[in-house]
Amino acid sequence: METMKKVIVDMDGVMADVYHQLVEFEKRDTGREIEISDLAGKPEIESFPNGKKHVNEIGFFRTLPLMKGSREAIEYLNNKYELYIVSAGMEFPNSLREKYDWLAEHFPFITWEQIVLCGSKKVVSGDIMIDDYPKNLDHFSGQRLIFTQPHNELIENETYERVHSWEEIMGIL
Amino acid sequence: METMKKVIVDMDGVMADVYHQLVEFEKRDTGREIEISDLAGKPEIESFPNGKKHVNEIGFFRTLPLMKGSREAIEYLNNKYELYIVSAGMEFPNSLREKYDWLAEHFPFITWEQIVLCGSKKVVSGDIMIDDYPKNLDHFSGQRLIFTQPHNELIENETYERVHSWEEIMGIL
Repeated sequence: METMKKVIVDMDGVMADVYHQLVEFEKRDTGREIEISDLAGKPEIESFPNGKKHVNEIGFFRTLPLMKGSREAIEYLNNKYELYIVSAGMEFPNSLREKYDWLAEHFPFITWEQIVLCGSKKVVSGDIMIDDYPKNLDHFSGQRLIFTQPHNELIENETYERVHSWEEIMGIL
Repeated sequence: METMKKVIVDMDGVMADVYHQLVEFEKRDTGREIEISDLAGKPEIESFPNGKKHVNEIGFFRTLPLMKGSREAIEYLNNKYELYIVSAGMEFPNSLREKYDWLAEHFPFITWEQIVLCGSKKVVSGDIMIDDYPKNLDHFSGQRLIFTQPHNELIENETYERVHSWEEIMGIL
């Protein structure tokens, strides 16, 4: 039997729609409506001046909306590959349990063995990585898929394969 | 400049003295005094009939005593290598924050970037791994140090280098 390839999938900005949540929290606090189409190429910290406060708020990660199509696609990948969910949650210690509970709610077929909450992703290895951040992809020795999010939209790097949606990923993997 | 080697260190049974805590909790609950010297070669689950209940107790991981010599040795390794603390805490979701807080108390020089809480360690890579469990060492492609604990005492495997103390590790690394 052929060994299944290891696929490493990021949570924030890939499985979970962080931009949508940050827009909603900004509107709730200040009434300001941020247009996502205005944010292309800007770092997240510039796009959301209150973002740092919001991501540290209890419940921010627990209530993140799903990225469109992620549930079906993750189930598809989980049946076809050795799948690992790898999230850099260590910067926000409140997020650790919230991320665990969020996965249990939306992806109940993912087992605890498949979850990694880390700081740096430099010690994570596998065959395929799907991530929205170059800092994570750049240390990875396998196939690199960059999931389009406003902050990375203008980045051109031929070592990444750019994907715009979960539907597109299912067509490739 | 030479790249620093990545050293992957386990928490339970390596940095933290789990056996000591399980003996204490058993004594507290039943009055029974378990002798650690009687446990050589036995799986942890057989050595501690109430162990499963105890590790799920709030505070179990937060109050683990330090393994003798671990503080000095981890500080030494942290200055000499690119050090990562990798713990399979995902089986016990209560342990996630407790492990983070335990590290912050006893090893304040370890940053969030250096911490990995996972399920399986199959996607963890590096140059040197220090762990007490063969299931973790066996997937690791670098140098493997098995830290002696009663459950692994009788295992002979020439792909591991056996170490009995943190003092011994400092002599090797």
